[in-house]
Order: sequence, then C-alpha cells, then structure tokens
Amino acid sequence: MMIHTNNYILNIKELWDDVPEEYLSHKERYENAIKKAFIVLKVLRQLHTGNIQITDHRTPTNVYSIQDGIFRNVNPLLIHIGLFWSTIAAQASTEQQAEWLQPDSSMIGTYVQTELGHGSFIRGIETTATYDSTTDEFILHTPRLSAYKWWPGGLGNTANACLVMAQLYINGTCHGLHIFLAQIRDFDTHKPLPGIKVGEIGPKMGFNTADNGFLGFDNHRIPRTNMLMKNVQVLRDGTYVKPKHDKLTYGSMLLTRVTLISDLAYQLSKAATIAVRYSAVRRQSPIKSNEPERQILDFVSQQHKLFITIASSHVYRVVGLWMWNSHKRVTADIHEGNMGQLPELHALACCLKAISSRDASALVEQCRLACGGHGYMMASNLPQIYAYTTAAVTYEGEYTVLLLQTARYLVKFWRLAAEHKPLPQNFAYFEDYIKKNFEQWRNSPEGIIEGFKAIVAGKTKAAYDTLQCNLRNGREFEEAWNMASVQLTNASEAYARSLLCEVFWKETVQLSTKVSKSLAIVLEQLAELYLMYWALEKHGDLLLYSTISRNDIEALQSRYEELLALIRPNAVGLVDAFDIRDEVLCSTLGAYDGRVYERMMEEASKSPLNEDVVNESFHKYIRPVTMKNKL
Amino acid sequence: MMIHTNNYILNIKELWDDVPEEYLSHKERYENAIKKAFIVLKVLRQLHTGNIQITDHRTPTNVYSIQDGIFRNVNPLLIHIGLFWSTIAAQASTEQQAEWLQPDSSMIGTYVQTELGHGSFIRGIETTATYDSTTDEFILHTPRLSAYKWWPGGLGNTANACLVMAQLYINGTCHGLHIFLAQIRDFDTHKPLPGIKVGEIGPKMGFNTADNGFLGFDNHRIPRTNMLMKNVQVLRDGTYVKPKHDKLTYGSMLLTRVTLISDLAYQLSKAATIAVRYSAVRRQSPIKSNEPERQILDFVSQQHKLFITIASSHVYRVVGLWMWNSHKRVTADIHEGNMGQLPELHALACCLKAISSRDASALVEQCRLACGGHGYMMASNLPQIYAYTTAAVTYEGEYTVLLLQTARYLVKFWRLAAEHKPLPQNFAYFEDYIKKNFEQWRNSPEGIIEGFKAIVAGKTKAAYDTLQCNLRNGREFEEAWNMASVQLTNASEAYARSLLCEVFWKETVQLSTKVSKSLAIVLEQLAELYLMYWALEKHGDLLLYSTISRNDIEALQSRYEELLALIRPNAVGLVDAFDIRDEVLCSTLGAYDGRVYERMMEEASKSPLNEDVVNESFHKYIRPVTMKNKL
Repeated sequence: MMIHTNNYILNIKELWDDVPEEYLSHKERYENAIKKAFIVLKVLRQLHTGNIQITDHRTPTNVYSIQDGIFRNVNPLLIHIGLFWSTIAAQASTEQQAEWLQPDSSMIGTYVQTELGHGSFIRGIETTATYDSTTDEFILHTPRLSAYKWWPGGLGNTANACLVMAQLYINGTCHGLHIFLAQIRDFDTHKPLPGIKVGEIGPKMGFNTADNGFLGFDNHRIPRTNMLMKNVQVLRDGTYVKPKHDKLTYGSMLLTRVTLISDLAYQLSKAATIAVRYSAVRRQSPIKSNEPERQILDFVSQQHKLFITIASSHVYRVVGLWMWNSHKRVTADIHEGNMGQLPELHALACCLKAISSRDASALVEQCRLACGGHGYMMASNLPQIYAYTTAAVTYEGEYTVLLLQTARYLVKFWRLAAEHKPLPQNFAYFEDYIKKNFEQWRNSPEGIIEGFKAIVAGKTKAAYDTLQCNLRNGREFEEAWNMASVQLTNASEAYARSLLCEVFWKETVQLSTKVSKSLAIVLEQLAELYLMYWALEKHGDLLLYSTISRNDIEALQSRYEELLALIRPNAVGLVDAFDIRDEVLCSTLGAYDGRVYERMMEEASKSPLNEDVVNESFHKYIRPVTMKNKL
Repeated sequence: MMIHTNNYILNIKELWDDVPEEYLSHKERYENAIKKAFIVLKVLRQLHTGNIQITDHRTPTNVYSIQDGIFRNVNPLLIHIGLFWSTIAAQASTEQQAEWLQPDSSMIGTYVQTELGHGSFIRGIETTATYDSTTDEFILHTPRLSAYKWWPGGLGNTANACLVMAQLYINGTCHGLHIFLAQIRDFDTHKPLPGIKVGEIGPKMGFNTADNGFLGFDNHRIPRTNMLMKNVQVLRDGTYVKPKHDKLTYGSMLLTRVTLISDLAYQLSKAATIAVRYSAVRRQSPIKSNEPERQILDFVSQQHKLFITIASSHVYRVVGLWMWNSHKRVTADIHEGNMGQLPELHALACCLKAISSRDASALVEQCRLACGGHGYMMASNLPQIYAYTTAAVTYEGEYTVLLLQTARYLVKFWRLAAEHKPLPQNFAYFEDYIKKNFEQWRNSPEGIIEGFKAIVAGKTKAAYDTLQCNLRNGREFEEAWNMASVQLTNASEAYARSLLCEVFWKETVQLSTKVSKSLAIVLEQLAELYLMYWALEKHGDLLLYSTISRNDIEALQSRYEELLALIRPNAVGLVDAFDIRDEVLCSTLGAYDGRVYERMMEEASKSPLNEDVVNESFHKYIRPVTMKNKL
C-alpha cells in the first residue's frame, strides 16, 4: 500500500520541482509548497476516505517518507496532518469529535501554544480564555505583546482554525492551561476574523515553507463548547469539572517526544547515506606513495567520523521502537486508570529526547563536515538535514529544561537510596554504588553497560551532595537546585547514555538470534562500536566512577580501531540497506549511482544566475566603476 | 579614520536594506549585494586613492567590521579585496606589480585554487598550464570534469580576472603548482572569453551573496608573463628557474590561517553579545516559588553555556594577536633568508586554525541554542554567524588534514625525546614525561597548564607507540600513520588546547599589570574560567596523564561554579564592552536597547508574506480543496 502510494506520488509531475526551492524567494517558496501540499492532501483524502487515523500511522517503521523529497524544507500542513486532528481525537469529547472529525472538513488547523515570551515554561503562558456565562462563550485575549502566539507551523497564512492553549478563567479564578478550538479565518474568503491579528514570522534556519506564524486575540469570542472537553469540562453555569489526572493534558507532547527518537534515526540514516557514499566516490591523496589516490572512506579518521553515525541510526531506531512500545503499554494502563508508570515514561522520554536530538545534530554536522566543502552546498542536502535535526533540540521541550526534569526523577531515587529505603529494580545499582559493591571492570559490552550505570550513580550522588550542601548553607530548595544544575544535567545525560547503550545492546543480542549468522555479526559489530565509542568518549567518567584502568582504556581503543576496520567492507552496504531512494535523499553527493561531480554540475546549471551570460547588474553597477576611465 | 568611514557609510541609504536579504530569491540577493559592493568599492577607492594596502590592514584590532552590517551574507568582492591584490603583491615580480597594481584597474579578480575533485590535498590539482615556446604562451586547460575549478568567491558572475593555481608543464615535465593571472571575461562586455566556461555553483549554508563559481579552461592561452614570477620564473626559452624555497608559495594560506583566529574571536563576540543580552531580557519560570519569573541569565546552566563564549572570544583575540606577531617575526626572518621558524609557525597555525574554528562553531551554536526557538530565526542573526563560522572548519585547510599536519611535527619531537636526543626548550616537557618527572598536581591556572602539557606528551606517546607497533607489524609508514590517525589527531588537539591555555593565561597576567585593578580582576576571572572549563571537559585525560585526583576535580568543579557567580554581575558589561553597534550585530535578540519582542514583531512585519491579507495561493490551491462541497 505504501509502495503503491509512493509510485503514484512519484508520477505526479507537479510535485517535483524543476528549480530547486533554494533558488526561490521566501514568498515563492511558500506558494510552491502550498501548491504541492494541497495536491498531496487531495491524494491522501482520496486514498484514505473517511479514515482519519489517530496515532497508529506514527508507529516507527523503516519506510522513508516520500514527503521529504517533495518538501525539501517542510510540508506546511505538517501540524494540520500530524497534530491538529490527533489532539482533537485525544482531547475532545465524543460529541465534539463527531462534529469536528469530518473527512471533508473545511478546517485547516494548527496547534498554538508557544508565545513570544514563553516556550518550554508553559505554565507562564499569558493568553487568557475567560468564561462569559451571560453569552455561554469564552473570550480569548492577548493581554500584551509577549503573549502573542509565535511559532506554530502553518499559522501564518494557511490555517483557518487552531487549537489554542490558554489560561482558563471562570469568575476571576484561574484554572490553568486548557485547549480551545478557535476559527481564525473565514472559511470562504480566508480573511482573518475580526479580533484576530495573524501573520507570518519570517525566515528561519530551516522549515522555511512552514509559514510559522504569530497570532493575537483582541477579546475574540468562541462558544463554550469549543473547549476540548474529553478530560475536563466547563458546564453552562460555569462549574469547572476537574480532570481525573492533571497529566492527561500533556499526552500529545509525550507522544511527540517518543516518536521524535525514531524520526532522528531516519534523519541520521539520510546523513550517513550521503556521507558514506560520497566517501566511497571521493578520492584524496595516496596513502602509500606508489598508489593512486585513495577513497577517503579508507582513511581511519573518516571511518571514525562516519561509522558511529551508522551505528547511532540503528540505536535510535531500536530505542525509538522500544519507547513506542513502552508508551503503548503505559497508555493502555492509563485507560484502565493506572497512572503508575507515567512518571518513569516521562523521565525516560525527557532525557532521551534531549540527548538523542543533541547527539543526532552533532553527528549530522559531523557527516556534513566529513564531506568537506561540498557538504556546505545546499545541493548536498546536508545543511537542510542539520537545520531540521537541530530544531529538535529546542522544540517540544528545550534540551536543558528536559534534562532537569529527568534529574528530579533521579534525585528522588537517590534520596531513597541514601536513606536506605527500598528501590525499584531498575535503580538497584544506586544501592550497589552506595555500598561500594563495584564489579571488577570488564572490557565487554556488558562491562561497559555496568560502567555507565556506575557513572549515573556517581553523577547523581555528586549532584545530590551539592544540592544538600547548598540546602545546609541556608538556600531555599529551588535556589539550591539552580546552583547544582550543571551537575544535575550531567547526571541526566549519563542516565540517557546508559539507557541508549543498554537497550540497544540487549535488543541487538535478541535480534541476532532471529537473523542469519552473517547479519548477526554485522549488527553486533555496530552495537559494540557504539558502546566502545561512548566508553572512550566518557573515559574520564569511567575513571572517576568505575574500576576501569588505563590499560583497559588502551585495550578499548585498540578494539575500537579493529571494529572500524571490520565494518569498512560493509559500510556502503550498510547505508544502501537504509534503502532511501534518490528522490527522497535529494543529494548530489549521496545518490545511489555515485555520479557526484556530474550531479553537482547538473544542479549548478539550474541556478538562475547562470541563465544569462552576463547578469544585468554588470551594466548597472560594475561597469561604471571598472571602466570609469576607459569609456 | 575608521570611525569617520563608518559614519560616512552608515549615512549612505542605499547600503541599508529595507527588506532583509533573507526574503529575496538567490538571484535577487546577488544583485542586491553587487549593488552595495560597488558602492563600497567606490567609497574605498575615494578614501584610499592609490594606496592599495597589502597586509597591514589585516592586523587584528578590536574594531568591528561595518561591512558585516551591510552584507548579511558576504561581500561578493571579499576575495577581490582581501586576497587577489595581496597575492599579486606577494608573488608577482616588481614589473608585474607595476603593471597590474593600478588603482583604476578594470580587473575584478578572485583566487582560483580548489577543484571539484580536489580541495585540501592541493598537490592533486589537475588543471594544467603548459608552456608553448613557439608563441611564448601558457595553455590553461581543464582535462576532465573533476578538474573544473569550483568554489572561488566572486567567480560565478562578478570576476573578470583570476589567479589560477595550475600544474606547470614545460616540455613534458611537470614542475608542480604555480599561480597564473588569467583574464576570463571581456572587461567591456563582461562576456566570458572564448575557451572559458564559467558560472555560479548554487546556494550554500552561508556566503550566499559570494557568487561562488566554477571555471573550466578549454586550451585557453595567456602570455608567459602572466605567471606570477617573484619567487620563480619561466624564461622565454622555457628554462625553469626554481624558487629559493619551495614553501614560499604557501605564504598567503599561512597568513589567512593566522588572521582567521582573530576573525573567529570577533564572530564569537557577536554571538556572545546576542545571547547574553537576550538572556538578560528573557524571563522564564521563577527560581523561588514566591518570586516573579527570573532573567534566564540567572540560571547557572545558562551561565555555563554563555560565559565560556565570552572568555573564548578573549582567548582568540589574545592568541590571534600573538600569532600575528609571530607571523610578522617569522616573515621578517624569511626576508633575511632564515627559514628556521617556519615549520613551527606552520604547525601552530594548523592546529590553532583547526581547533579554534571547531570550538568557535560549537560555541556559536551553543549561544544560538541558549536563545531557545528565537535563536532559530534568521532575524536573530545567529544562524548566519554559525554558517559563517562553521565554514572556517573546512576552508583554508580541512580540520583533520590540518591536525595531521601538526601531528607530524609532534611526532618528530617525540622521536627525538624517545631517542634521548636534545629537544628545543618548548618541548622539554616531553623529556620530563619520559623520565616520569611529574609535578604534584596543583589546582591553579599554572597547574592546569602543566597538566595540559602532560596530556600532549601522553597522547603523542600513545600515538607514537601505535605507529611504531604498526610499523613493526610490517606496515608501510603511511599505512601505519593512517591506522594511528585517530590518536594522532587527538594529540594535535591536545597541543592546540595547551597552547590556547598557556598563551591566554600568560598574556592575561601580563596585561593585568597594565590595567586598573578592577579590570584586572575581571580579566583574570575570565582566563581562570577558561582554564577550569577545559580542565573539567578534559578531566579524563588529566586523570590518565597527570597526577590529578578525584578530589582535585571536585574542587575544580566548585571553583568553576564560583567563577560563574562572580562573572554574572559583569556579564552584560562584558559583552557591551565588545562594543558592536546594532547596525553590525543585525539581531532582534541582541540590540543594545533590549527591545527584543518589539523588534521581533517589527521584523516579521517586513515579511512579503504579510503584505496581502490573503495570499493568492488560497484561491488557487487551498479553497478548491477545503470548500469542495460547500460551493
């Protein structure tokens, strides 16, 4: 089915640009993307009549997204398709869903939360929704400039409706953040409704076809029944009916963080494919003096940059699926009224989202730099992959903010351990650390995993001790917490690292029993490489918190270099196995056929600056200066 | 004089865009930049009549470049002004200079070296210049696609002449790379000359107004006297007169690497100014519960991200000036026929260029991420500063290639040490390391500097031992070198780090005696912060190669956190002291008056997508889908 859709879409000529998007003006890019977005939307509606899927389509798969080829920046309907409908499905009441979830709805929606003045600290959001019981309406209002909504994708010019996060006020009492459905433009004329100030926020590093927008409300009225009322209600008389669990509202954010890990795996496989293939084509300086120039993939320093990217792509794929399954399990529990696993899932999602987005960005950039100057060209597609990946470090929860969330969870368990209270099984190693039950270091994957757990314990202890020391010195808790925050984020980072290593290794070992022997060998090499790489990167922490010795580290370094040599013959095969077709990869450097220089020249020939032999600015600006005395 | 020029230029209205460059198409951006470039060129010619300065104008100063405000991307005449004339001055004979260095020259030139297939490995360049003694001409030729020149700034549409690096052939003998002046376009019509295929290479991450170009020669003839003949000559009869020293040709590359360090200091001060000022305006979540939201600059995790950037900007300024002075000294020596100091200068410039560009890019990106989502907007100017900075990791010598150059130098001295031969004073610590003369660790700047030297010794030894082991196992030298290259680059990185720390600390201590006490305190805090930061980052290497203990590291961490608190009150003052005016900073987030949200909204209002209330794509593409059943 997916393949069939792809072939169908590949044959729609209007979806494939003659002139690459990068040559267009900001406005032209948007208009071009909108054209394509609505062709795609029409196709999707034809293919999935009446079947507005909720979350199942987000299950991580190995299948690339054909959209990436059509939208070099991003589909302006990304939020409409990905978040608007699913939030309604998750948070609206049955009646609301029946009314709004129509396959032929005129609504083009987006999800509107962030404001000019508030992002990750969402409690600080300033937009208000005040209930007016005389008219049975909410009044949406933007009290000041910093309260303007800012960032939502598709908001600037495209959306005519949105889900707005606002502070709910009833009779002067604030009940906190709630979500409201607000129409913002006339469905027929597309003009902004009275009381709505909406527009586009301007160019960004990436996502430049998303028409990210701003939005201000001037006492804009919507019906009471436009508040999303599945978990929480406001009755006709203004009675506020609390949700059963106040975490229920944040479900869609959690899900997004979970799926992000798999998306990062996919971005990494694109970057790795481009850089590895290019490195097999590019030749530079002979290694031995009597040889021709060598493929740069033969340089060990290049292997060091690239093979960790291949491995990391597998890590995020495996861990992303593992988190997806955990999320499914926890969601099922919640439906049965059991919230017990939610804090753990939240803590895992926070630190894994933070570290995987940060690591993935760094690795994409490493791939780009490994392609030398040519990686700097937009036609390599690496700058766009970086711009896309690095955005994930910030959106849906800023890096440091998320790490500090997980740190609260770690500190909670460390306190239990320090007070010799019972610990859950997965934190038993805190107790071992306190009792100094150190295992003798082993230079094996299992040994490294143990070592990383010791780091988590050691760093959590260090942060906890600093926190306690600050408290003893008379600081209030939050001030003491702030003073320890560098160490707290370090502990969280270590925790994410240990999870990535442990889950990846265990899942790989399990998977290896189900595949051919020759495949199992390669998969285990990649997993071992990943663990060795990070053990070497974090050797300082291992020296501080485990029983590793200098000799062990030297042996790890040798084994790591051995693994690079072992993986080298399969490197191109490994990226070919990601199976990303050229139309999706969009890279002169990374195409399957390896015609790098030919494609670079072909792409350059598309530059509008090459249309005229002499650009008109010569006559207007250059000649009057250079030929001044020669006329 | 500089100030006077600035004020003059600030008042030329045409130089300041109404619509920011980011909104324009690729072609429009170029045309807009050319318009401004030639206005500036005219002004410069008026102000400096007949005075074509050579290198003195590149002396590092604290004065910002007003051009940065005019050209958000880059001045298309950057290479014309910065490299074309200075290379002629450095490499052309007296007669050639007299002919070419005319203040009213019609030449717009560029420097053409890199090819599609060859970058940092310049010996591999394939373009040929074959002497034809029958006509007294050189024939420039591009033998295949990979030999096309690719990348030179200003080449695509602007330059009518260029300095071409090509392999010199005389009577079938190749004499290696030489530089030739070639006219490529007619001065009057600007049409490419016969036998010239020239064009623009397309969009990049940054430098998008540079019209980087490609160039192919089809047996293009130039007079023999167009080879740059100061150090080397080809006589009428084809006699080749060798240069006195074969390193002389690479002088301009060395100089560029030296000045780059100071340029990176300036880029870092821009990023730091933006991020620190924004962090003083932005408020997010109260630290104590009964407080209003706090300036994010009060969060220790934010200070951790930003203060190292302020400090690093000072490091590169100080080390850049120190390298500039070394370069001046060495160049003076060379003019007296003494080449002795050149290898050291080369080795220093290689690793310092590599590490400072890499670190600066990472720090700029850290500043951008520290501004949250708003740092992702082009109007913050942080993405452009990053694109500019990260390019320096690759151009003028790729990161890893340069580190491996320095590694050869380190290995040379390690070999002397290992063979107990005499060492120069600055490598005496290699001998100490071999004799295990370890000083007791001291938690002081001097102690950290000693520690970093021990790391250089330890890592050079490790790489050297691996190299020797590979040789013993029967590998040829270059193969053995390749196998050890990860460790070799590690040693080079450590060497650069130790230089940065040592030079910065020593120069700061010296400077402190010459300034007011209160200023001296702040400068020493910054220098100490820099050293502590890197000691903590590299604690694993210190544990391996020095006598530091776990307690020492914990004490360093405490002192580091103390320093953050000490610097906090001066943070805004420190970036104000960089004294970069708003017109140059070009940032909504970083302007002096702190009107962040107002400026963001003002910038957004300039978006052409906000000109019409309803974009025409609504009628063309959206309405037919959304109102399908409602017409």
